[in-house]
Amino acid sequence: MIAATGDGARRASSIGGGFVVAALAVLALALLTARPALAQGGAGGDDVAIAIHGGAGTILPGDMTDEREAEYRAALEEALRTGHGVLSDGGGALDAVVEAIQTMEASPLFNAGRGAVFTSEGTVELDASIMDGRTRNSGAITGVKTVRSPIALAREVMESSVHVMMAGRGAETFAESRGLEQVENSHFYTERRRQQLEEARSEDSGGDADGDGAEPEHELGTVGVVALDRDGDLAAGTSTGGMTNKRFGRVGDSPIIGAGTYAENGTAAISATGHGEFFIRGVVSHDVAAMMRYTGLSVTEAANAVIHGKLTEMGATGGIIALDASGNVAMPFNTPGMYRGRIGTDGELVVEIYRD
Amino acid sequence: MIAATGDGARRASSIGGGFVVAALAVLALALLTARPALAQGGAGGDDVAIAIHGGAGTILPGDMTDEREAEYRAALEEALRTGHGVLSDGGGALDAVVEAIQTMEASPLFNAGRGAVFTSEGTVELDASIMDGRTRNSGAITGVKTVRSPIALAREVMESSVHVMMAGRGAETFAESRGLEQVENSHFYTERRRQQLEEARSEDSGGDADGDGAEPEHELGTVGVVALDRDGDLAAGTSTGGMTNKRFGRVGDSPIIGAGTYAENGTAAISATGHGEFFIRGVVSHDVAAMMRYTGLSVTEAANAVIHGKLTEMGATGGIIALDASGNVAMPFNTPGMYRGRIGTDGELVVEIYRD
Repeated sequence: MIAATGDGARRASSIGGGFVVAALAVLALALLTARPALAQGGAGGDDVAIAIHGGAGTILPGDMTDEREAEYRAALEEALRTGHGVLSDGGGALDAVVEAIQTMEASPLFNAGRGAVFTSEGTVELDASIMDGRTRNSGAITGVKTVRSPIALAREVMESSVHVMMAGRGAETFAESRGLEQVENSHFYTERRRQQLEEARSEDSGGDADGDGAEPEHELGTVGVVALDRDGDLAAGTSTGGMTNKRFGRVGDSPIIGAGTYAENGTAAISATGHGEFFIRGVVSHDVAAMMRYTGLSVTEAANAVIHGKLTEMGATGGIIALDASGNVAMPFNTPGMYRGRIGTDGELVVEIYRD
Repeated sequence: MIAATGDGARRASSIGGGFVVAALAVLALALLTARPALAQGGAGGDDVAIAIHGGAGTILPGDMTDEREAEYRAALEEALRTGHGVLSDGGGALDAVVEAIQTMEASPLFNAGRGAVFTSEGTVELDASIMDGRTRNSGAITGVKTVRSPIALAREVMESSVHVMMAGRGAETFAESRGLEQVENSHFYTERRRQQLEEARSEDSGGDADGDGAEPEHELGTVGVVALDRDGDLAAGTSTGGMTNKRFGRVGDSPIIGAGTYAENGTAAISATGHGEFFIRGVVSHDVAAMMRYTGLSVTEAANAVIHGKLTEMGATGGIIALDASGNVAMPFNTPGMYRGRIGTDGELVVEIYRD
């Protein structure tokens, strides 16, 4: 299902190459294909689609018990069916994104909401973002400790404030003023993540071990959802606890529009997971959309070019889910595994964890 | 290298007769504007260039005394000469960006460093970001109250941490650990900004007046610099106090890589100023670079398309400075004025405030 690396990478490098012939073809393609695709308005009727991820990293069959694998598959399936149910009932892409993410925020398996990783202070600080492909209106929050559903708060910022991004205590104050459900920080704690903090602390002692590019198991589990509804509208959302043992008020890519999350009707909805610093530098989610919009590459070609080409060349690890206006899904990653799934326009549910 | 061509041709021919006409138009455009300049690999010898902005908004000659205008022109000239001096002496683009921005952070005229706007709590909270076009390595900080030079801290994050973005107290703790100069928050206070806070508070009483899309004078003054050095390396940086009377831990576009700041060798360095929420949603700085990279448009064409096309269609106000790998500068804005200036490869210093 994951397309080969080479083709996408070659195409990507040809685009940056600066040859008039390529620029010509690319520009013609952009002019001829970009807007017509928009005018067709994506899917109609029941052509709804959804894709999800639950984090990319060093996920190997040998490290996983059958029971643990079954838990992940069940949780991914629940998120997919929840979001797809919204879409099948004629609901909007934003609703599908929020409801699917909320099942994963509620699950202790993922690094989002309950089950999120611990900071170096032994607390949980949550980030999330959401984007509406119709208007490119967006909401994002970072460093929130007391709001049960970070993705719901991101949506509230988008819909009920004049801002796009709010941080820390200010974001929490806004959540209180809007009546979002508050919880104690301990609501998010799990014993598994506490142990991972201890492991990370011993790994980090004597040096900063965050910079090696690899994402050990305890970094895993950012969640994201992209959806296409009956009106042909796209939406994307991402929710995370960030990095285990994170310090310095670090902000990763998940709450950054264009890096961790991007959606634009007629082009694509994208959510990312991986080594966030590189996703910010590469403006990865927006780059996939820009490549599609300006060169006419398909969602699969663009997603592969960015992940297997540009991101890999930067030495970074991770993956994305991307869904175009016709319901085509790409889920490339350059790690051993990525928790992921989709229900495409054919209605078939697919859940995968490892490379195929 | 021209793999995209075949794909483009297939798609285009399937669309039909419009292709030939469009292709001819595109050919002319591509031959006139596309990559040859880029393929030469940017500037060599003394072909250095720098451009700066000090904020875009409702700046009208009638609202400005001659004395005040002279102060702004002098401050812009000082920043330009400082940055250009670094470049002329063979210094790097990053150094030029930091040193030029620091002169504006030190000036009470701009909404950055000393002279930054007040939050609703009557404090100053500063944001900044920087990007190195060679590697796309980046640094960004938000909500910092005690570091004299926010742009220096952004660079420190980029160069001396494994992170890209740090927020609030965590960013300050990092600054202390790295020995950056600390100041009391009152170092940044100016009477003029205090008065603007009072004005904003009365404007805001009874409702949220931030959402009208216009940027009154008291929002003005974000600073940004883009530079091209002798090695052909590009860099961009942005520094701001955000919005007067800002609440809710609001994060604007200035510390968001891809929105307020972007730099990529061979393409362009960009810094933005304006109604930040829209710049985040439009991923404006990266969009200019992506349009150049993927379609072969010149820096002027791409910058105009984004500011006068897409941003204006979103109902947003602001402007950008953009500098390409050959030293060409574009400084489009859709507000009545933008404090701005450049010293191009011809060595001529230009400082402008209003529309010409």
